[in-house]
Amino acid sequence: MTDKLESRKAAARQWFEKLRDEICASFESIEHEAIGESMYAEMTPGSFEQKSWTRPTQDGDTAQGGGGVMSVMRGRVFEKVGVNVSTVYGEFSGQFRDQIPGAKDDPRFWASGISLVSHPRSPLMPIAHMNTRMIVTTKHWFGGGGDLTPVFPVDADTRDFHGAFKLACELHDTGFYDEGYYPKFKAWCDDYFYLPHRSEARGVGGIFYDNLNTGNWQADFAFTQDVGRAFRDVYPSIIRRHLNEAWTEQQREAQLIKRGRYVEFNLIHDRGTKFGLMTGGNTDAILMSLPPLAGWP
Amino acid sequence: MTDKLESRKAAARQWFEKLRDEICASFESIEHEAIGESMYAEMTPGSFEQKSWTRPTQDGDTAQGGGGVMSVMRGRVFEKVGVNVSTVYGEFSGQFRDQIPGAKDDPRFWASGISLVSHPRSPLMPIAHMNTRMIVTTKHWFGGGGDLTPVFPVDADTRDFHGAFKLACELHDTGFYDEGYYPKFKAWCDDYFYLPHRSEARGVGGIFYDNLNTGNWQADFAFTQDVGRAFRDVYPSIIRRHLNEAWTEQQREAQLIKRGRYVEFNLIHDRGTKFGLMTGGNTDAILMSLPPLAGWP
Repeated sequence: MTDKLESRKAAARQWFEKLRDEICASFESIEHEAIGESMYAEMTPGSFEQKSWTRPTQDGDTAQGGGGVMSVMRGRVFEKVGVNVSTVYGEFSGQFRDQIPGAKDDPRFWASGISLVSHPRSPLMPIAHMNTRMIVTTKHWFGGGGDLTPVFPVDADTRDFHGAFKLACELHDTGFYDEGYYPKFKAWCDDYFYLPHRSEARGVGGIFYDNLNTGNWQADFAFTQDVGRAFRDVYPSIIRRHLNEAWTEQQREAQLIKRGRYVEFNLIHDRGTKFGLMTGGNTDAILMSLPPLAGWP
Repeated sequence: MTDKLESRKAAARQWFEKLRDEICASFESIEHEAIGESMYAEMTPGSFEQKSWTRPTQDGDTAQGGGGVMSVMRGRVFEKVGVNVSTVYGEFSGQFRDQIPGAKDDPRFWASGISLVSHPRSPLMPIAHMNTRMIVTTKHWFGGGGDLTPVFPVDADTRDFHGAFKLACELHDTGFYDEGYYPKFKAWCDDYFYLPHRSEARGVGGIFYDNLNTGNWQADFAFTQDVGRAFRDVYPSIIRRHLNEAWTEQQREAQLIKRGRYVEFNLIHDRGTKFGLMTGGNTDAILMSLPPLAGWP
């Protein structure tokens, strides 16, 4: 069992890193496609810069550790996009033991995942977030999802984004949830990415899932992989749809305000951000999701 | 006792509103002083706009209520400055009863106060915050303070800001705290306005006090008034010191990053913000402290 779990952890970690490489390559190629009459003609295409970090540990404490790699591109189409891949392990401190499944009696954990937030320069292109992860305590499970935050929602974008995740859900639905993966995970996303203090949704949704362990690890991993692939393929196609659209100063203003709401959600409500900051995660990596510029005029 | 307490509540409320009027008049006059060769020559002086709000209540529920007035100026020297005055009353919900002094057995409260955050356009002028309040449960007390957040600290500004509050502290020190008002409240401010996830202070400090009830209401009120007057007088003098200084694009960039830290503090750590958002306060008024533009490049 231990050997099998170890090989699964290794496989999940390798996948997250491979997915990161594929997405970064795809985004970089878009940077080069924006040419000619577009708003980016005068600007230089961006490329990702990587920075690795290690989890600070006490000298000689081999039970805690790990780290990650932040990949950030400050480009012309992607004004700021960050992709974090991290694999960390250790012991949960007291306050988390009761909250995390399987951590009550044995606080040891291992976690690996990819998380991405994209802030395009154009206010006509949607902000996007994607994250998938595998967590191991005395239990083990997958979680993740993706959601889209347009400043000005476009039906085709919303339809394509949901369609891609719906397909991944339907291909891998094990029947574990009575209502079906897509309805369940779509509703979960709407519920999670909501700003109660503004009485507004963060965007047009997507899917969100957590604690997924159907008893069939291969099926859960294959689903998680296809969630990543769905995002890898659909978001670039949405970005390309708007590649040659010009925008106005007013639209840019509206974008800065929408980005302000994004900041509010991430700093006030997002569990991942809170969890990361409270468990001594890497602040730069955790807050890489924040927009390059935001406004509260 | 009830009549006396009612007249004290009325006096405190009137003072907070008077202080607001004095500060707003002072800031508006500065808008007109920036002329000639300055960075603002092409811009129009701003003036405060007021917007009142009432606390939403159930029909016929006269035990809950109140409201406030937001005053906001989007000017040329003051890119965005918000001054909130509010007076609210009602009952604390369960989660707060154990946390608020005197609310455990009787959850009724009354609270009145002024809060201000100023975001100057010039990166050479410091961001400032000031807040004073009177709270009544089965106990009653004052709280408040002010703190300064320069992008590029200037010794004279820091010295003047601390000097003004130190004077107010020393004039009204009742001996209630062994260490003295100023050392106590200065340390409290340094402790409170700190970003643990960045391991950095919000700015150069000031004073912070809470639960102040020495047994002499007049003395506590007089102190709270002089804290407000100290801010009313010293902050404009600091702003005027930098009125004719030109700034660079790099300095503006640094300001946007510092403002991002300000957003982080207010949304992640500030108790007032959390308390307001969780008790159904007015979101626009609570988040008026956020900067007009901020960056996480």
